[in-house]
Amino acid sequence: MGVPCLTCSTCGGSRCRTGGSAGSVAAVIIRDATNDDWPRIWPFFQHIVAAGESYAFPLDLDLDTGRPWWMEQPPGRTVVAVDGDRVLGSAKMGPNRPGRGSHVATASFMVDPASTGRGVGRALGEHVLAWARAAGYRSMQFNAVVETNTPAVTLWKALGFTVIGTVPEAFDHPSHGLVGLHVMHQEL
Amino acid sequence: MGVPCLTCSTCGGSRCRTGGSAGSVAAVIIRDATNDDWPRIWPFFQHIVAAGESYAFPLDLDLDTGRPWWMEQPPGRTVVAVDGDRVLGSAKMGPNRPGRGSHVATASFMVDPASTGRGVGRALGEHVLAWARAAGYRSMQFNAVVETNTPAVTLWKALGFTVIGTVPEAFDHPSHGLVGLHVMHQEL
Repeated sequence: MGVPCLTCSTCGGSRCRTGGSAGSVAAVIIRDATNDDWPRIWPFFQHIVAAGESYAFPLDLDLDTGRPWWMEQPPGRTVVAVDGDRVLGSAKMGPNRPGRGSHVATASFMVDPASTGRGVGRALGEHVLAWARAAGYRSMQFNAVVETNTPAVTLWKALGFTVIGTVPEAFDHPSHGLVGLHVMHQEL
Repeated sequence: MGVPCLTCSTCGGSRCRTGGSAGSVAAVIIRDATNDDWPRIWPFFQHIVAAGESYAFPLDLDLDTGRPWWMEQPPGRTVVAVDGDRVLGSAKMGPNRPGRGSHVATASFMVDPASTGRGVGRALGEHVLAWARAAGYRSMQFNAVVETNTPAVTLWKALGFTVIGTVPEAFDHPSHGLVGLHVMHQEL
């Protein structure tokens, strides 16, 4: 029998598939991010944006100007995956569009490169999907998944997403040059 | 010999195909929008958003809160198509994403329903494409074209766009129910 799933306060463990198969994530808790969490997210946020392999965010952000790019306001929400006082990763989520598109959710994810391989990304992904289902969204859409970001593409497919289409040469990758951005989607 | 193309200050007429074939648009001038233009855009912007057939904008906008949804700041730009003092339509344009996605342009268009059939949408589309080429963008992407908005889909295909993919049931249409949103794209 696997260890109880402790990754997800929203789904109560019923939807999470990581706890039983990867004991290393049993200590990971996912909770709403507070303002005090941002300075602990910022170092790996900054690192990931500067690495330039996965996000088309502005390249001149600092601690203050970066905050609104990640810390969502209602009806959006930002969460952190923590192990004690340590922030291992974060996700933000909310409606993909306002008004007549607000029944479709979207989300973004960042995992501290020092914490990869622990199932943090999967735990965050399952948490976000459970949240979106519980909040009544009909589907979830990712607008810009870098096609060369194989770990992300593989994970999202494993969690039920399909590629709706790929915008060619839409992302300027530091080593691969111009690569495509997948639009990914799943019904909830 | 057709009348001179007066629709497009950016392309100098060389790219516009409307002037010679549709004399009714010869009086249409496209120019940068000023702050004073917004109150003249707002009535048809409000009408089009309220009609709910083409844009997933917030449904509770007013003259002041609607302004930043249409009046772009640099590097974006908003233009108006005018006939004398009358604003017939408007377009906004700019980078689709910041940073490593900023080589892809995007744009949005609204034509006063009282001015349809004059080629205003086509003139705005050609103007925007010429602007994006001149500004050095490598491609243009529309993120959310309502699949039942046949005049728009037909026009964008005629101007060189293809459908990259369609996000199913992503738009809540007032009469058709949940319909798809096309992601459309063309190289420049």
